[in-house]
Amino acid sequence: AMGLVADIFDQSTLEKLKGKNAIGHVRYSTHGESKIKNCQPFTVNYARGALAVAHNGNIVNATSIRKDLENEGAIFQSNMDTEVVVHLLSKCKKKDGVERLKEVLSKIEGAFSLLFLTETKLIAARDPSGFRPLVLGKMGESYIVASETVAFDLIGAEFVREIEPGEIVIISEDGLESHRFAQNQKKNHCIFEYVYFARPDSQIFNRDVYAMRKGFGEMLAKENPVDADIIVPVPDSGVPAAIGYSQESKIPFELGLIRNHYVGRTFIEPEQSIRHFGVKVKLNPVKKTMEGKRVVLVDDSIVRGTTSKKIIKMVRDAGAKEVHMRISSPPTKWPCFYGIDTPSRKELISAHKELEEIREFIDADTLQYLSIDSLYWFDKKSEKEWFCDACFTGKYPIGRDEIAETIKKETGELLVTE
Amino acid sequence: AMGLVADIFDQSTLEKLKGKNAIGHVRYSTHGESKIKNCQPFTVNYARGALAVAHNGNIVNATSIRKDLENEGAIFQSNMDTEVVVHLLSKCKKKDGVERLKEVLSKIEGAFSLLFLTETKLIAARDPSGFRPLVLGKMGESYIVASETVAFDLIGAEFVREIEPGEIVIISEDGLESHRFAQNQKKNHCIFEYVYFARPDSQIFNRDVYAMRKGFGEMLAKENPVDADIIVPVPDSGVPAAIGYSQESKIPFELGLIRNHYVGRTFIEPEQSIRHFGVKVKLNPVKKTMEGKRVVLVDDSIVRGTTSKKIIKMVRDAGAKEVHMRISSPPTKWPCFYGIDTPSRKELISAHKELEEIREFIDADTLQYLSIDSLYWFDKKSEKEWFCDACFTGKYPIGRDEIAETIKKETGELLVTE
Amino acid sequence: AMGLVADIFDQSTLEKLKGKNAIGHVRYSTHGESKIKNCQPFTVNYARGALAVAHNGNIVNATSIRKDLENEGAIFQSNMDTEVVVHLLSKCKKKDGVERLKEVLSKIEGAFSLLFLTETKLIAARDPSGFRPLVLGKMGESYIVASETVAFDLIGAEFVREIEPGEIVIISEDGLESHRFAQNQKKNHCIFEYVYFARPDSQIFNRDVYAMRKGFGEMLAKENPVDADIIVPVPDSGVPAAIGYSQESKIPFELGLIRNHYVGRTFIEPEQSIRHFGVKVKLNPVKKTMEGKRVVLVDDSIVRGTTSKKIIKMVRDAGAKEVHMRISSPPTKWPCFYGIDTPSRKELISAHKELEEIREFIDADTLQYLSIDSLYWFDKKSEKEWFCDACFTGKYPIGRDEIAETIKKETGELLVTE
Amino acid sequence: AMGLVADIFDQSTLEKLKGKNAIGHVRYSTHGESKIKNCQPFTVNYARGALAVAHNGNIVNATSIRKDLENEGAIFQSNMDTEVVVHLLSKCKKKDGVERLKEVLSKIEGAFSLLFLTETKLIAARDPSGFRPLVLGKMGESYIVASETVAFDLIGAEFVREIEPGEIVIISEDGLESHRFAQNQKKNHCIFEYVYFARPDSQIFNRDVYAMRKGFGEMLAKENPVDADIIVPVPDSGVPAAIGYSQESKIPFELGLIRNHYVGRTFIEPEQSIRHFGVKVKLNPVKKTMEGKRVVLVDDSIVRGTTSKKIIKMVRDAGAKEVHMRISSPPTKWPCFYGIDTPSRKELISAHKELEEIREFIDADTLQYLSIDSLYWFDKKSEKEWFCDACFTGKYPIGRDEIAETIKKETGELLVTE
Repeated sequence: AMGLVADIFDQSTLEKLKGKNAIGHVRYSTHGESKIKNCQPFTVNYARGALAVAHNGNIVNATSIRKDLENEGAIFQSNMDTEVVVHLLSKCKKKDGVERLKEVLSKIEGAFSLLFLTETKLIAARDPSGFRPLVLGKMGESYIVASETVAFDLIGAEFVREIEPGEIVIISEDGLESHRFAQNQKKNHCIFEYVYFARPDSQIFNRDVYAMRKGFGEMLAKENPVDADIIVPVPDSGVPAAIGYSQESKIPFELGLIRNHYVGRTFIEPEQSIRHFGVKVKLNPVKKTMEGKRVVLVDDSIVRGTTSKKIIKMVRDAGAKEVHMRISSPPTKWPCFYGIDTPSRKELISAHKELEEIREFIDADTLQYLSIDSLYWFDKKSEKEWFCDACFTGKYPIGRDEIAETIKKETGELLVTE
Repeated sequence: AMGLVADIFDQSTLEKLKGKNAIGHVRYSTHGESKIKNCQPFTVNYARGALAVAHNGNIVNATSIRKDLENEGAIFQSNMDTEVVVHLLSKCKKKDGVERLKEVLSKIEGAFSLLFLTETKLIAARDPSGFRPLVLGKMGESYIVASETVAFDLIGAEFVREIEPGEIVIISEDGLESHRFAQNQKKNHCIFEYVYFARPDSQIFNRDVYAMRKGFGEMLAKENPVDADIIVPVPDSGVPAAIGYSQESKIPFELGLIRNHYVGRTFIEPEQSIRHFGVKVKLNPVKKTMEGKRVVLVDDSIVRGTTSKKIIKMVRDAGAKEVHMRISSPPTKWPCFYGIDTPSRKELISAHKELEEIREFIDADTLQYLSIDSLYWFDKKSEKEWFCDACFTGKYPIGRDEIAETIKKETGELLVTE
Repeated sequence: AMGLVADIFDQSTLEKLKGKNAIGHVRYSTHGESKIKNCQPFTVNYARGALAVAHNGNIVNATSIRKDLENEGAIFQSNMDTEVVVHLLSKCKKKDGVERLKEVLSKIEGAFSLLFLTETKLIAARDPSGFRPLVLGKMGESYIVASETVAFDLIGAEFVREIEPGEIVIISEDGLESHRFAQNQKKNHCIFEYVYFARPDSQIFNRDVYAMRKGFGEMLAKENPVDADIIVPVPDSGVPAAIGYSQESKIPFELGLIRNHYVGRTFIEPEQSIRHFGVKVKLNPVKKTMEGKRVVLVDDSIVRGTTSKKIIKMVRDAGAKEVHMRISSPPTKWPCFYGIDTPSRKELISAHKELEEIREFIDADTLQYLSIDSLYWFDKKSEKEWFCDACFTGKYPIGRDEIAETIKKETGELLVTE
Repeated sequence: AMGLVADIFDQSTLEKLKGKNAIGHVRYSTHGESKIKNCQPFTVNYARGALAVAHNGNIVNATSIRKDLENEGAIFQSNMDTEVVVHLLSKCKKKDGVERLKEVLSKIEGAFSLLFLTETKLIAARDPSGFRPLVLGKMGESYIVASETVAFDLIGAEFVREIEPGEIVIISEDGLESHRFAQNQKKNHCIFEYVYFARPDSQIFNRDVYAMRKGFGEMLAKENPVDADIIVPVPDSGVPAAIGYSQESKIPFELGLIRNHYVGRTFIEPEQSIRHFGVKVKLNPVKKTMEGKRVVLVDDSIVRGTTSKKIIKMVRDAGAKEVHMRISSPPTKWPCFYGIDTPSRKELISAHKELEEIREFIDADTLQYLSIDSLYWFDKKSEKEWFCDACFTGKYPIGRDEIAETIKKETGELLVTE
């Protein structure tokens, strides 16, 4: 259903759910409009029985596959790319279930962490690039698959390992078996999970997110020092980087902006236009703390620039003498096509404005971003090859032609990587 | 949605509905379980755009067509026979819309009064047998298609004509055009619409329902007279026949049983197991009126017999000296496969018991049914050919083989017509 | 709560209701606006514990008592006259519960069938005039008190007797005890319960309502015969009188107007302005039955005249040659102050128009009412003294001064009885 | 209504609210059970018109006043102490509104920040002790009264001044006027507002809450230093004190515990048993940050001890080598009777256990509280007289006798102050 999980899965609804296996999904509909038909898990009854699918990511060639299927008479129930997978499975003539899945998964391109629930099995599959995380846990005798390790912490389950890129894991009464539908290839983990998307208490791609972010803040302080009185994070996502900046610079950390928690709930309501890349949740300044001070504001990214502009005005109104904006990632210049809900390139302020123009627009005394090199502080050499940083560089590793076409259609611009 | 129309289409919901064309459907899910997926109109987006379909009736060969389509990879969203029509349309390679519809309609068998809404057109089609009614009306410049003429009365529209069996009517901005997908053939109008199903103030198959029912009552009085004090109908469906019986027999008509209107609303709630063929709505006797009297109870049909038994007990408890049951149709021996929600043959008391056994079971002093011949009082000769009376005779005019197989599977009985 | 009983008392709500004693109330808020605060039973916690009260009727001197109490500092929660009773009880210094109740009931005037639920007792009391019915039933070892006997029929309880006018009945674990707070005096049973308000299958004031109404119809046929083809009732309330008229006149009874049951539910929704005295539920004509006929239309009363006008137009549009309106009660000229929700005198068509003017307004060929004398067909002599017929005659038996003042304020007219 | 403000005051509800003046209330029902009758604002219609009242605090002598009023026949609608004020107003014979209010307010004792809305006026009053904050703001030409200044920030209003203890402020079309119902006396501001209750971005009793809390943390570091690797706050309330502790001790501040925001919404749902003094919202550790470290955990208070015990276990499970608990206030030994929803003395761990026993129970390596003296770091001398610190000391400044009696009834203990 649409709304908050806690509102929908209340006591009486949970009691009606019988059975031993389950999959669920909390999503912003990144691909396809926000309506009930586009809710996940996507469920069907087809010739081979009942099937439910949950999908995290984005299939880059979904549109062209769908067009082909529709021309042959297939009827789609939703606008979701996920449904393409189901139709391919239904059409595939291979008798063996695993072979069928291998054939279908090798036809789709992009980011996909997929969960299938059949009448007897739970099946997990992750794209060969490993764009999005997908982790395996265990609680007692039961296996659990989740997007982030924090899901295991909350219920007291144990983290076993990542589902490998290109791997299919089948969980049934007979235990767990593993198959591969793609051989080892260059990985393309999403670096933006570290910058903003994942929870700070998660382990993603086998590293602590909180430590990654603190590291970004320390590197930012080294690259872009400033003479100031206090470090203030834009809560909540800017907090770990601000702590890193403060420890490196020896300038005191202060909680100068308080987030209004009661507004926080709008965060996952799909009918709200307020999402991360729009406006952050409502903030309020702690006036006496900023009065007469030179403030370093630390945030993880600037998207349209309008939110930063509002926050800086708020800090100045509270009496700050100077405001130095420090961003713990490089400028966001390109939209994501692998599952993060970025606005189009037209709306990204860094796509069209230079640093000095942005500083002027948001009205900061100084503005600095983290460099691409410092982003990879945790492994200076080889690891860099294993991450997707297309939102900063335009280097889209998968489906480049389809992406270039979409960008051209939307903005008239060519996709030229730096 | 599921529930009462007036609850679902409240003011605020209606205000959200913009546009000039609309179709709607109030149904008991006669084929397919009662859940939201089986609600009508059935809507899809397929290669040729958006399409909504509402269906009154039952497609006899839906199961075998569906099995074929699923084996080719088609995915069904519902359990409704209606969806088969949509898949056939999606698969059909014919370019011209009307030709496509003709081809599809000629593949399906059974009772179907269908309405299609496309982005620019409203299309009505009725099966070649004309099992269920389908009528065309007009209000100002707008055309309206409905199941019964009473729908026109309620909104002040004018009744134009019946949609012909085998006809396709297309309504668009260019006006109305008519096509035929089947040539004139023997019709099979449902006689049970006259007996029970249609509203008494409707005109069905070009005749007044109220007059039909009064006629059944008059014939019943002629065929099965009885020496009694008062005629009491089982409300509401038995009222017109009871009036006919009273006028013919000169025995006074009395409203000895009062229906509890407040319970009436359960009638169209799908989650309720109380439907027509189960238990009638709650009745209450007017005691002084029946005390010491010889009562003729008039009802339209006996299905399982349990309801009649309860009503007769209620009438005896109210003090009636004798109770004579008179039924204004022949014994119901066979289930309907053309859209009426009859229970299976196992549950039909007349399928397995003789008249005297039934009389004993319901505890009436005497029991008489209308004869098949008298059922056709309104046209003694040719017209009889034009009606389906399979529920009384077992003479299923369409899909006889598939029906025989279903009956055999359920009861082990052979379908032998009288 | 506000809405339909069946919607509010669903399974899960009923399961939460524990305990052995209960009172309930379904009402139009006749006195006080329609909002949740004015729902009944009215419940309070006061110095003597918890108390719930349900009230059928109208207390004529409630306003003046309330003004006195408020001036002494009392705070009212609702606009209901019922609350006055509770405040009087709370203020009364008498120690003994029965004495307290006797003192309070002797201070209030008008129509009141009251039910009190305390923590250990169920108490019923009826005003000395006995305006409204109040009946005692029994099911197993349990006592039940209700407004009409039909409530007992629906649940299978047994009718014991009426609660007497001026009687207090106390039901507790110790059984039933009876007290009197007023001695035998002239009764003032509401004759309009027979004419319209009660259900036809109820026994009211120890007589069958259906038989009363049929009698009104027979008297009407005797007093006001007409040469016609068919008798058609305005359903549902006109049906018994139409049957009586038909039997007396030997003119056939036909169900020429069908009520739309699905609209019927608006009947008890308080937010609807559609109530009995406004517009009857939607009707539809059975055209062929009335075409070319001289029709006698039988209804129980005419209030504003607008509904009759609409119905007669509908009957004429259906093809009737003549329409003769027959009303099974005298002209309604005065509003009720004893619990029936009549509109004010201004709106009553008979208060200001002569018979011929009304006939012209509703466009009937002829119009006749029942005479006051024939209203008492069931007892020509003494019984007449025992009924209130103020709505026809203006002879208000209780609180005449307060009523005269109200009428003067509203219409400028003096209360002069005929 | 009951639930989240944002759920209840949705767009359509807000649109229905017409008028220029309004009062509202978000509360845990601290006195009286949690049900709809105990919702605020409390509204009545009494002899002098409509009145709504919102109340923050707790009236100590409400029970005895209520008993007197009920014995005189008054009927209460709720269990709230607020209603006592309304009944006193209704009973008071004084003609002049201000005089009436002065008389009533001088009869009640305890903590009360009251707002009254009449048909033409908004009236604010604060108890002579000034236990709870009450502030006056302005937006354009409109006056606003609120519990905390942060309410002004959220809507962009300007903070004018505190409503004075013992002051009545009347806002009407004629502007603002001020009256006094009590002369200057010793104030008793609630010190616990600084420790925990108020939002960190508010100004309470003319001081910044965030700065107060940081000061408590600095004093705590001075009084109770420890050799450790990192300072970790218990979020959210422990954060400012932890920053203070870190800055004073030069030990790095780390966000080692992450609060699950999605659970945060249970915080203000009244049907939940999870409140501040029960279990804090769900926390999750950032493992790598605490692994092998000596951790100083900073929290604002310990109530029952069970939450601290769970958090320390979580920190140890995450790999901390040592856990040093530091509390930024003195031990909470006595329940609050002035509006904070503390559990009874029985449940307060510091009421019955010594420091060492508590340390053992929560399983910390060391445990230290702030001293009473250091609590008053911001004004060492006179100001101390102006605060209520009864929750730490048992020195209840108002209604001491009634409070001593309640404590004795609940625990059998005498109220002896330290």
